[in-house]
Amino acid sequence: MKNFAGAPGTWTGLILRMAQCLFSVGSIASMATTKTFFNFTAFCYLIASMGLLLVWSFGLAVMDVYALSKKKVLHNSILLGLFAVGDWVTATLSLAAAASSAGITVLYFGDLGGCNLGEECTKYQMAVALAFLSWITVAISSLIMFWLVAAG
Amino acid sequence: MKNFAGAPGTWTGLILRMAQCLFSVGSIASMATTKTFFNFTAFCYLIASMGLLLVWSFGLAVMDVYALSKKKVLHNSILLGLFAVGDWVTATLSLAAAASSAGITVLYFGDLGGCNLGEECTKYQMAVALAFLSWITVAISSLIMFWLVAAG
Repeated sequence: MKNFAGAPGTWTGLILRMAQCLFSVGSIASMATTKTFFNFTAFCYLIASMGLLLVWSFGLAVMDVYALSKKKVLHNSILLGLFAVGDWVTATLSLAAAASSAGITVLYFGDLGGCNLGEECTKYQMAVALAFLSWITVAISSLIMFWLVAAG
Repeated sequence: MKNFAGAPGTWTGLILRMAQCLFSVGSIASMATTKTFFNFTAFCYLIASMGLLLVWSFGLAVMDVYALSKKKVLHNSILLGLFAVGDWVTATLSLAAAASSAGITVLYFGDLGGCNLGEECTKYQMAVALAFLSWITVAISSLIMFWLVAAG
């Protein structure tokens, strides 16, 4: 079980964590550089949720690097349970943030006949797309963790 | 394992499925009786997603009733895998639908300084709240199914 792809302390696990960090940083950067995001509750929530995901994934990436460099196996069942719960919560929060921001983006682009905020519009779309990508990567991690806990 | 709370073919499983049906019907009824929902992509998506959840949960509720009445045990691993994937997909779609509709509701109620569509507003809020409740119940089912598959 210790070489299960995506498990904590493996190269695939580390790559997943780094992808989560990258996508969430991109989403925050794209959203936070617009001038009007604070007028929309959903966009502020997106930044908060991506911030949480970033902190969580960065912490676990550091732990993966430590485990890989020391060749330690991170398969303590309490630790795995904690990772599974944390991943599930961050995955849920990031999906909710991405979907609520997407709802508003679609409202402005499609339903109200086009976005008239200039280049801000592209940034909103980019932030939402990156948020969905970060959700996909954290959802994969979450399923792997849950599987390890249940099968362990 | 056969009496695991919430597993298919148990009373708790049947109660969870009935709660999912009830909340999704309520959400669809509340949203579909408004006159303006079709102007919003997210609200149409909410109805579609809740419709899918309703069909899925109703089918599984019928199967639970059959299993309970014939005292059969539904622990075929292929069947459980199918239930786990189906539950995970419906849970994800219903969370996305609930969150995107909530994003728009919050935009109209909070960010744009109040909703001026009269009683429609209460119906929108009710539909979103019921969608979140149906997500919670299907998420519980999904976690139980996934656990059964992984531990089985």
